[in-house]
Amino acid sequence: MKDVTLGIDIGGTNTVFGIVNKNGTIIFKDSIPTNGMEPAGNLFERLFAKFNNSFEHYSKEYKIVGIGMGAPNANYYTGAIENPINLNWGYVDASSLIKKYYDLPFALTNDANAAAIGEMEFGSAKGMKNFVEITLGTGLGSGIIIDGKMLYGHSGTAGELGHINIVRDGRRCGCGSKGCLETYVSATGIKRTVFELLSSSRDESGLRDISFNQLTSKQIYDAANLGDKIAINAFKYTGKMLGDALADMVAILSPEAFVIFGGLAQAGEMLFEPTRKQMENSLLDFYKGKIKLVKSGLEEGDAAILGASALIWQELRK
Amino acid sequence: MKDVTLGIDIGGTNTVFGIVNKNGTIIFKDSIPTNGMEPAGNLFERLFAKFNNSFEHYSKEYKIVGIGMGAPNANYYTGAIENPINLNWGYVDASSLIKKYYDLPFALTNDANAAAIGEMEFGSAKGMKNFVEITLGTGLGSGIIIDGKMLYGHSGTAGELGHINIVRDGRRCGCGSKGCLETYVSATGIKRTVFELLSSSRDESGLRDISFNQLTSKQIYDAANLGDKIAINAFKYTGKMLGDALADMVAILSPEAFVIFGGLAQAGEMLFEPTRKQMENSLLDFYKGKIKLVKSGLEEGDAAILGASALIWQELRK
Repeated sequence: MKDVTLGIDIGGTNTVFGIVNKNGTIIFKDSIPTNGMEPAGNLFERLFAKFNNSFEHYSKEYKIVGIGMGAPNANYYTGAIENPINLNWGYVDASSLIKKYYDLPFALTNDANAAAIGEMEFGSAKGMKNFVEITLGTGLGSGIIIDGKMLYGHSGTAGELGHINIVRDGRRCGCGSKGCLETYVSATGIKRTVFELLSSSRDESGLRDISFNQLTSKQIYDAANLGDKIAINAFKYTGKMLGDALADMVAILSPEAFVIFGGLAQAGEMLFEPTRKQMENSLLDFYKGKIKLVKSGLEEGDAAILGASALIWQELRK
Repeated sequence: MKDVTLGIDIGGTNTVFGIVNKNGTIIFKDSIPTNGMEPAGNLFERLFAKFNNSFEHYSKEYKIVGIGMGAPNANYYTGAIENPINLNWGYVDASSLIKKYYDLPFALTNDANAAAIGEMEFGSAKGMKNFVEITLGTGLGSGIIIDGKMLYGHSGTAGELGHINIVRDGRRCGCGSKGCLETYVSATGIKRTVFELLSSSRDESGLRDISFNQLTSKQIYDAANLGDKIAINAFKYTGKMLGDALADMVAILSPEAFVIFGGLAQAGEMLFEPTRKQMENSLLDFYKGKIKLVKSGLEEGDAAILGASALIWQELRK
């Protein structure tokens, strides 16, 4: 029998899960709709019905030794999901819910933290002991690894880099504050920048024909590749903001590297080049030229499962 | 024989040292001029000549089990002091220099880190596992404790909170950058704020009779206590800047508390009240009302020795 773990990632729309071995090979994976308006217990019931059904086929060869879970507003210390935005759940004691199905070692954390642990176990940060994972989705998440361990902090909720202030009295943020990093650096952030530039400049741009709600970061990237000035400048501005924030993180944490994950990271050098330039410009002298900025090594579709699985593999080694 | 450690703190002007027991009681202490224009070896020679002479009297009762040292630009990993500003030393292999006198366990870190460890062992952070020590002197230093351990980061130089950007294109900093936190929040920072306010406002103020070079933060505090508007507003502005920076640190690190140390901390609520107000205002909702802001519990004159001693006590427990 070969040891495997079950990795589960609860997203706003879909919940993905899969069986993963020690080397990060996904034996099988599947997904179901999260249905966040139904009680959480309903999701867990559907999830394990489907999982058990599929796993039957593998149960002679593989033995599940632990379950890892990534979820929004997850608290590692309590094993609970606490008032997740977009899910009508309130407080969910995930640890107890899981025990109804499998009495196995269980660990829970948020998606960005899970991505960071996945990166360390299976991705671009293999062998690194100090790095910061930045996930660029609708918002900006982060997971901080210090001395080979996840930083949870006193409350279990450390690593909210998306909500450090980057512009005094800047853009209004969903958290209630103004000028948070994620209002500039995220899929939504770059859209807001495009609309600012469409308003402040007179440059012709294909983006002038697309509404705010319809515009995607992929369209901005495609436009930039075609030489659209507004789109190019939007990436430059996004990189400048990110680069400044990363330089501050270096002063505080002294990481070896930043690993960038998520949709916007697909833009590659279009985003990385202005980020690196601004970071280098803002770094304390003795850090210049020494901090790596790399793209995630996790396949976008598999990252969530790999992260959740890596989380519990790491716990099992403790 | 009772176990004690030797704590040494190398400052720009004086080097202090003392024998400290496990409970943080200083058995004896002394100091010598650092003479930073002479080679470092010279300081170590004078230091141990004086120390051995004094220690003779105690050597029947006490046994030295380790040596801890705080110094500017100190690297914990290498045991070296690297191009300290104000000391004409270049690279000093402190670890090897010490071995010429005592072949004992030795640990080295910078002054702010040593203060943080001292605070955890003997001061306001006893029993805390996650906190940030902020030292307000000529500049702003910090020491970050995570899960009961000092954060050194990949390079050994983490915790330079004084150099995070707080005002875009703000005040020129000694590090070459602009808008660093310590250009606003430090003894020098508040002086710069006073001079900004003397220039922008028309308020009468006793501070209008003092030159920049002569003005001390103590004078600003005294003036504020007498109702001087400029001085009061300078403290408010300093607290606002510090409060914003602390809120960012909470989002990143999720500490239990901030411990404030150094000359400017003596101003107490004059500084703490506006800092707390701004921090609360800028915190993510789930942190509001939960983060402690406390004054150092270390006697100003003893803190450096206690910090250096605590550093090696901690190593010895590993």
